Parts: sequence; structure tokens; C-alpha cells
Amino acid sequence: MTRNRQWIYARKPNAEVGPANFDLRETEAPQPRAGEVLVRTTLLSLDPASRAWMQGATYRSQLNPGDVMAGWGLGEVVESHAEKFAPGDLVSGEFGWQEYAALSAHRLTKHDKRHKPEHLLSVLGITGLTAYFGMLDVGRPRPGETVLVSAAAGAVGSVAGQIAKLSGCHVVGTTRGRDKCKWIVDEFGFDAAIDYSEGNLDRALKAACPRGIDVYFDNTGGEMLAAALRRMNVFGRVSCCGAVSQYDTASPAPGPFGVPGFLVTKRIRMEGFVVMDFYNRRAQAEAALARWLEEGKIKAAVDIVEGFENMPSALADMFAGKNRGKLMVRVG
Amino acid sequence: MTRNRQWIYARKPNAEVGPANFDLRETEAPQPRAGEVLVRTTLLSLDPASRAWMQGATYRSQLNPGDVMAGWGLGEVVESHAEKFAPGDLVSGEFGWQEYAALSAHRLTKHDKRHKPEHLLSVLGITGLTAYFGMLDVGRPRPGETVLVSAAAGAVGSVAGQIAKLSGCHVVGTTRGRDKCKWIVDEFGFDAAIDYSEGNLDRALKAACPRGIDVYFDNTGGEMLAAALRRMNVFGRVSCCGAVSQYDTASPAPGPFGVPGFLVTKRIRMEGFVVMDFYNRRAQAEAALARWLEEGKIKAAVDIVEGFENMPSALADMFAGKNRGKLMVRVG
Repeated sequence: MTRNRQWIYARKPNAEVGPANFDLRETEAPQPRAGEVLVRTTLLSLDPASRAWMQGATYRSQLNPGDVMAGWGLGEVVESHAEKFAPGDLVSGEFGWQEYAALSAHRLTKHDKRHKPEHLLSVLGITGLTAYFGMLDVGRPRPGETVLVSAAAGAVGSVAGQIAKLSGCHVVGTTRGRDKCKWIVDEFGFDAAIDYSEGNLDRALKAACPRGIDVYFDNTGGEMLAAALRRMNVFGRVSCCGAVSQYDTASPAPGPFGVPGFLVTKRIRMEGFVVMDFYNRRAQAEAALARWLEEGKIKAAVDIVEGFENMPSALADMFAGKNRGKLMVRVG
Repeated sequence: MTRNRQWIYARKPNAEVGPANFDLRETEAPQPRAGEVLVRTTLLSLDPASRAWMQGATYRSQLNPGDVMAGWGLGEVVESHAEKFAPGDLVSGEFGWQEYAALSAHRLTKHDKRHKPEHLLSVLGITGLTAYFGMLDVGRPRPGETVLVSAAAGAVGSVAGQIAKLSGCHVVGTTRGRDKCKWIVDEFGFDAAIDYSEGNLDRALKAACPRGIDVYFDNTGGEMLAAALRRMNVFGRVSCCGAVSQYDTASPAPGPFGVPGFLVTKRIRMEGFVVMDFYNRRAQAEAALARWLEEGKIKAAVDIVEGFENMPSALADMFAGKNRGKLMVRVG
């Protein structure tokens, strides 16, 4: 029998999530049934949304203590009881935090091996698709407009900002710390960066967005959203991708001042989205992202932690803002 | 010379607006210059937005103490120095709270005298156009969906609800007091009404909207918006028309919990609008509203107070929720 290590979501966090909320369990690799495929995990994705899954039902059902921790991964087919898949195939899916997973074939996506594995979990995966649809379909930037992206050194934000640059916009990113500010300007071509830990967001936004904000790609919610609404132009759009500032806390804050007042007087559209809603156009987006990556028009930012045992601490580090770009763990 | 009484916006309200904030001034009717028209006011509109104008710049510049109080009215042309207008014409425009106003011709709209004057300031005026575009273009209800309208016994809400009924929806209105609840059901055909003063909005919304809310036409903001967001369906839309709960207070509340969290998980679109943005299609909307009114498919709800001297107390009564439908004052 093959050993299968799993991280169990054991205890609901009161505030910050961390290793104390998980237990490592050793079991045996599952036996795939008819229609199922056994996958060996090679890379696991770490996502801010996983913290929201612990708070309640979101776009997926709530996680409950005792469940294998949920998460997306990349892996290799070991055994297949489904027509479309064969051993050796490179696949992705919602494996959970475990070394082996048995999934129905329809829950797996097969990938071209010419792509780097880490790209398939970042720019060419859910991260890139989220940035693509959230920026272009929800935010709808036009050339010459000003686009603000929060959590701009993160997985989605770094790609969203680069897509806004390709759209001909003046692009400003927010992140924590001067190093990351410099990094998003130098590496991804943001026109300006704001270190939100320095405070005085209104003054910083005024300086970085002298003509106001037309599109705000919001990964954080909270104070940054409130400040962005104050600086938005008439007919501005807020693409609501996530609210990472509100996930890892016992007491989410009330909504920003100015909702709905500013929305009316400035005719602002705020719209939330979930990437799966756009999957009917997934192939189109993947092709565009792959071409941009190949042509060097966007850069992938990948932050890989080695070792399955480090999953919980990597998740905590992400909420502490320690990652640069897409955070993932190499399992084997 | 002709006497012209004016209500001056004299003192900024600390909290509730009322007669103490206005001074009555007697002056002479202005002399229209070339290109201008002198109008005698017959009806003046009272609007929740006038309170917002005192708080700061909105879609119009801020009102300052000493200004003639701003407001829309209907009147008769007395003297014209503009080609398009002649004495006796029925016109509307932003006259301000005064018995006579001189305005540039391009700031006036001429009306067909076959319409009732009170309809021109309600269903066939800005009120009706606001309901029309806010419901159909921003809310976009589909047959069979559930539509919630707040301040449903008010000027815009009563029309918005009737347009949602014409669109084939299950329509629920919120207002204050059992009498007004009964009235909006009996008079305008709302399917259900919620008396928000009874509290427990979540339970009331669950009972009245058993299949959730697809479109929320928001005139109030505040607690009702927060409760509506909790009950919204996936892909729901919030048409942000106003925030009357937040105008008449010294300290506007923070935004509702769940912004942006619910917007993301439920893919909600919240969009503010100002009716003037749709004026390129004004004729189309006016024709539809006039036809519906003529055919008895929508009813006009008009609450007329007699006497120019009563303008400030009528405004205060509106914020106290005493009006039914569109509130206006007959001047002469």
C-alpha cells in the first residue's frame, strides 16, 4: 500500500489561521473506482480564499473540522479508470491537501506538458484566469484610464496589473513594504506603487492617481476599498475579486463608508465575480495568457515552498504578506 | 414690480432638516435677459436628494447658506426673451424655492398641457424617469424574478415597484407603518409589503421573498441595504438610487457588512446611477410612462401641500415619512 499524508482541517481559527488549526494524518492512498483517476500530488496551491471557506458557505460549501483541507493542486496520473486519462498525464483539480487523491474524471483538467508546472498553477491556472476575467470583463479598462490593483504583489494582483498595462492604462498597485513596492514596479511594470502600511491612503492615492481612479481591482476590501471609493472617478468600476483583509480575523469590519452614497453620486458599478462563471470562455483566456507569457508580455511570479509538511505555515505566511506572487508548495 | 418670495437656505442642519434652516425673503421678480425666460412657479417638488445637496458636492455642486434653496418646479412662462418659449407655456426646470425665476431657455423643458401638472412633476417627470431607468436599465429584472423596493410608498419607489410588476416580477416593498404597507399593496399592486419599523428585517425578508431577492432597488441604504444583501440571490443586482436613511443625520453610518464579501461570493452587481445620465433616451421613457399612465397600468401617487410658506415644514415631514407618493407644494 502507498502511504498518503493528509492535512486535516481540525480546529476552526478564532482569528489568524496557522499550524494550530491543522493535524497531519497518515493513511493509505485511496483506491480509484470506475470513472475515477488516482493522482499523485506534485504542487499544491495556497489561496487567500481558503480562509473564507472556513468562515461559512461561499461559492463552495463550508469546510468543516475533520475534513481534509481543501485546495487546488497539480499532479500526475498514477492509475486511471476513466477513458480520457492515462498514467503519466499531467492534471490539475481540487485534490485537497494530500499526497494522493482519487477524483472523478470530470473534476480533472489535463495539461500540455510543454508548460512549466508552476505556470499551470499560476498565470495559466485559476490565478491567471481570475485576473483576466476580473480585469477585462468586470473592470473593463480603456486605454488611458487609471487602474488601481490591491494586493498587487500577490498571485492574482500581479497578473491583473500586467493585463491592465497591456490595456494601455496607468496602473498603480498597493502592497506592504518598500521592497515589494519596488518589486512590482521593476518586475511587472506598474507605473506606481503604494505601501499601505505607511498610512495616509488618501494622500498616497492622490499622488499616484492624479486623474482619479477609473477601475479598482479589489483583492482586499476594508480600508483600501473605502479609500479607493473616495478617489474613484464618475462612472468608475470596482471589480470585487476578494476581501483578504477580512478573511483572517474573528470580527470582519462593517462595509466602507460611502456605500451606497458614493455609488450613486459617482455612478460607480461594484461587481463581484467568481472565475468559474466565465469558464465557457476559459480556452480563449488560457490561449491569450499563454501567448502573453511566451512573448514576455506578462511575467509569472511564483513563490515555491518545499515540502508538504510546510502547508499550514505557508498559509499563515501568506496572510502575513510574506509571499511574492503565487504561493505554492512542492509536494514531491 | 412683482413681489417674489424666496426660501433661503440659511443655516446648515446639524441633524434633521426643518424650518429652522430656512429664512423667507421677499424681493422683486427678476428681469429676464436676452435668451432667458421669466417663469411663475405653480408647483414645487420636494426631494430627498435636497438634503444630500446640503452635505457636500453630489451630482450637483453643494448648496451654501445664503443660496436660494434648490429644487425643481413646474410653472408658466410670464415673459420670454428666447425663441422657443412664449407667455403661457407650461415649463419645468430647476427654479429653486421661489415664486418667480429667470432661467436660460436651455435649462427649461416645455410640456404638453394635456398632461396634469402634478403628473409632470411625478410619474412623467424626474421621479418617473428615475424609476424607469433605475429599474429597467440598472436593475434589469426578468419575468419571474423577485424585486425588492425600499421607500416603496415614496415618489420613486411607488413607480419603480409598478414597473417591476409590469416586468412580470414578484414585487415586495418596504415602508414605515401598517397603513402604508396596506396602501402600496392595494394601490400599486405590490405582492407584499414590509413595515421596517417592526424590526427583524431578516425574518420579514425571508417570509416576503421566499425565493430570495434578484433585484433590489435601493432608495435608503443603511440597515435595509445590509439586510437585502444577506437575502440576495446569486447574480443579484442592486440598483443604487439613493440613500435617504443617511441624508438627514449628522453622522452617516459605515457601509453595510458584507461589502465586498457578499458581492464576491454571490456575484452581486451594485450600481449607482443618476437619471440625467440616461437623458439621451428621455423621450422613449416619457412616452412609455405616459402610455402606462393613460392605460391605467401604473398609478400616480401625488401628495400635494398647499402654500409656498409650507415648503420647509413639508421637507421635514418627508424625512419623517409622512408623505404618500410624490410630495409637492402648490405655490399659486
